[in-house]
Amino acid sequence: MQPIKIVIIGGVAGGATAAARARRLSENAQIIVLERGPYVSFANCGLPFFIGGEIVERDKLLLQTPESLRARHNLDVRIQSEVVRIDRARKCVVVHDLSSDKTYEESYDKLILSTGASPIKPPISGINLPNVFTLRTIPDTDAIKKAVDPGAKRAVVVGGGFIGLEMAENLRKRNLSVELVEMLDQVMPPLDREMASAVHHALRQGGVGLHLSDAVTAFEQNGKKIAVTLKSGARLPADLVILSIGVRPESKLAGDAGLELGIRGGVRVNKHMQTSDVDIYAVGDATNVVDFVTQAETLFPLAGPANRQGRIAADHALGRSSTYRGTQGTSIVRVFDLVVAQTGAGEKTLRQQAIPYRKVYIHPAHHVGYYPGSAAMHLKLLFSPDNGTVLGAQITGREGVDKRIDVLAVAIQARMTTYDLEEMELAYAPPFGAAKDPVNMAGFVACNTLRGDVVNVHADDLGTGCLLDVRTKAEFERGTIPGAKNIPVDELRNRREELPTDGRVVVFCQAGLRGYVAARMLAQLGLEAVNLSGGYLTYRAFHPESSRND
Amino acid sequence: MQPIKIVIIGGVAGGATAAARARRLSENAQIIVLERGPYVSFANCGLPFFIGGEIVERDKLLLQTPESLRARHNLDVRIQSEVVRIDRARKCVVVHDLSSDKTYEESYDKLILSTGASPIKPPISGINLPNVFTLRTIPDTDAIKKAVDPGAKRAVVVGGGFIGLEMAENLRKRNLSVELVEMLDQVMPPLDREMASAVHHALRQGGVGLHLSDAVTAFEQNGKKIAVTLKSGARLPADLVILSIGVRPESKLAGDAGLELGIRGGVRVNKHMQTSDVDIYAVGDATNVVDFVTQAETLFPLAGPANRQGRIAADHALGRSSTYRGTQGTSIVRVFDLVVAQTGAGEKTLRQQAIPYRKVYIHPAHHVGYYPGSAAMHLKLLFSPDNGTVLGAQITGREGVDKRIDVLAVAIQARMTTYDLEEMELAYAPPFGAAKDPVNMAGFVACNTLRGDVVNVHADDLGTGCLLDVRTKAEFERGTIPGAKNIPVDELRNRREELPTDGRVVVFCQAGLRGYVAARMLAQLGLEAVNLSGGYLTYRAFHPESSRND
Repeated sequence: MQPIKIVIIGGVAGGATAAARARRLSENAQIIVLERGPYVSFANCGLPFFIGGEIVERDKLLLQTPESLRARHNLDVRIQSEVVRIDRARKCVVVHDLSSDKTYEESYDKLILSTGASPIKPPISGINLPNVFTLRTIPDTDAIKKAVDPGAKRAVVVGGGFIGLEMAENLRKRNLSVELVEMLDQVMPPLDREMASAVHHALRQGGVGLHLSDAVTAFEQNGKKIAVTLKSGARLPADLVILSIGVRPESKLAGDAGLELGIRGGVRVNKHMQTSDVDIYAVGDATNVVDFVTQAETLFPLAGPANRQGRIAADHALGRSSTYRGTQGTSIVRVFDLVVAQTGAGEKTLRQQAIPYRKVYIHPAHHVGYYPGSAAMHLKLLFSPDNGTVLGAQITGREGVDKRIDVLAVAIQARMTTYDLEEMELAYAPPFGAAKDPVNMAGFVACNTLRGDVVNVHADDLGTGCLLDVRTKAEFERGTIPGAKNIPVDELRNRREELPTDGRVVVFCQAGLRGYVAARMLAQLGLEAVNLSGGYLTYRAFHPESSRND
Repeated sequence: MQPIKIVIIGGVAGGATAAARARRLSENAQIIVLERGPYVSFANCGLPFFIGGEIVERDKLLLQTPESLRARHNLDVRIQSEVVRIDRARKCVVVHDLSSDKTYEESYDKLILSTGASPIKPPISGINLPNVFTLRTIPDTDAIKKAVDPGAKRAVVVGGGFIGLEMAENLRKRNLSVELVEMLDQVMPPLDREMASAVHHALRQGGVGLHLSDAVTAFEQNGKKIAVTLKSGARLPADLVILSIGVRPESKLAGDAGLELGIRGGVRVNKHMQTSDVDIYAVGDATNVVDFVTQAETLFPLAGPANRQGRIAADHALGRSSTYRGTQGTSIVRVFDLVVAQTGAGEKTLRQQAIPYRKVYIHPAHHVGYYPGSAAMHLKLLFSPDNGTVLGAQITGREGVDKRIDVLAVAIQARMTTYDLEEMELAYAPPFGAAKDPVNMAGFVACNTLRGDVVNVHADDLGTGCLLDVRTKAEFERGTIPGAKNIPVDELRNRREELPTDGRVVVFCQAGLRGYVAARMLAQLGLEAVNLSGGYLTYRAFHPESSRND
């Protein structure tokens, strides 16, 4: 029997994983990897850190070479080899060898597309000027570094997604002044607006000029500099510009071959990563996926899922029945000393998909307050109002944000509920957490609302009623919600006659816990008391203009 | 209607939690907390760090006072109040007020026992000498600190459990020389022996003298010093001795009252934390629990479960149906710069309970190797041979150990399988992990054995066959398993004729991955190849005497 022949288009992330996996499954398969660029299997997530200098050796970005992949896995890896057409009828691809400028055909039994996504470049005047960069490949990286190294002074970053934020930070580390322009009123669009407040703060603290709700109208060459004109009228001079407006799936090859495309131009695949042609698979950023929480078709250009999909495609191409369960959108980014992470659906997505949800905010410390270095994180949990199923979580903070988002990511994968969060038995010693971990706390707070032990309100809609600040007098005096009356929780039992006997009392404290205790107390004393979820800290995230005095 | 009267014996951890929870549920309940000692709700897990100086202010250990608990929660907290007897027939307790030396009765509707556990003091000659300490309370802490502060030079720690290890480290931080004596051949008995190797190494690196498989036969006062005599004949001089041999449940009160006791003297409770008397609950270290994995009755003196149980007891006493799901034994300890964590059942427990299991070892990095600061961790995963259900995990390492053990703890809680670990979508950016997280890797490696893609052997039983080291020549020359032949994996396809054509080949590399690749290759070439799980690193953990040259 002729050994199976697998051709893989794209030698990074999903493509490289698929190739190695295929070899492990079949020693005699013929496996060809066709990579358009000059490098395979490079560290695409590391590129900003190399520009910023945290990663010093360029070689570290090059995880594999065609030679190392041949030696280890007996792979036929061809770089500078662009596939220009897929001939499905004849089961072959047309390859343009960029180094020799020759074109040839390569047949396949199974074809795996790992073509990735390309940075969006909108039709703005001057967008193709030499020092307007996108960042996706090693050559992009080299070009940006070459522009920075001779002593560039000013950079403009357009777009506040992952790459934009990481580049803003890394260019600041190189001592450039950095202006970040974002069309929306927040950076990191998948994050809910109020959770992005902390990111805006971190960027400003890091010395990044933030231009929200603004957009570039033109780039102009001005001597050695680029003048960046914004819709607001501002003109920003720059030695270089980084465009990070987003990416779009590289699905032209698939579309031209008549393969079915899905939402926003991604290649549509089934749970085995098969396209509408059973002999062609697609994986990674080029591919549509099912959102694990909402079950909607979507795009999630993320490294973990790309690798997982590559493995599944190779499995299935070689006769195994592996399936992909969908993508949760778990992601994390460090922005100066802030860590921002999320998993599952955000409030925006849930609204869009008309999925009912409840939310709570908490501000727990990474570890017990009596052990040095304890710092607060800010956690938003979204869950089903019916049964408490965890739908999504977003966290900003420092130490331990990654841990809690991972725990919550697993909870979502297992379709666990807020009641399960209450019961989680997580590792505790003073340097690592608390006997009641932040995740437990999130469970308690969420379940308190589900069980009807407390009625929460949110800072975007306090409703009517008497605003009651139950923090200490000193906290109250440092700033409060306009119109609030102050009775510290510890005095509330003795001062209850100061409250109106009818009408609603909106209780709040700093982070939500004392407010909960007070609201429980007042409710049992016969008052209609509601608690502001997340307290004054969350109020300020919703109303950043109110926090000038901190 | 008369408000319900709840009496709680013990004002730390579970007792304090039960009291606060009871108040939140019922504003008019009468709640009395009877605490034998002079402090309530103190930070018992922080005591070693205060002695070591990491926690500087003693006040930080005192989380609450009777006054603060009265103000916040309207609790009647009585310190120095020892309950000497429970009169179940008359539903009252007899209280000895230690400050006034008076005795009185206090009736209850519901009684919650949170009496804790007391350090074991075996009948060794001299064990009651003044400078032989146990550590459980604030007064214990004060006494130890008083012995250390004037410039103590030498300490002997007896017992290598959590407190013993934390005290060894913290006394070293105070510049004492420290000798640790442990009866078993390893510290941290719940950990499997080979995983304890890293802890032994960390202790020795930290300057702790380690006396394993040895025991104290006598303490003798020798001027101002104590002479500690060991079974081995060694005599260790010490300014102070810390006994941390373990704890036993303080269940005498319960036993005297005729309440049913369970294994190793713990108070037996049902899933609502009710003892054999429906009006009496027991929580925390005094209580037997069901092991969540093995379903056996056991003892797990841990802070998280104690707090959780306190909440459940209060819930149930006030008419809610809350239940406790059992304890997994998730725990963590920092030993100098090593972090050691575990969750679920260890190999010892599984053997004891005759539960079938498989195991794998991996040594993944916390985060991608190209980002600075990447360090390896050592992970052992135990799972069901039938369906891959995760049974337990043990990890040693530095950064990120706590995160992975928490992720695996949730996996156990959700009864997830190794197939689920493969699919986990955890947060990845270069500083935080890898596109294939260590937990994913553990899943891959475990599933490879379940799917029959590779046959693993373990370092405690290599079996017969040709030992093949597939690492590089340089690695081989730095040390290998006696009798091994070296063919680097990348040369194996071309040098296969150097291998015997029949008989078994036991392949190994450094950490297990290259060995897996090689074993797959050889198996497909028709050889009987098995892979050593965890490679040479795990071999050395099993055979620490073999690692002298590193």
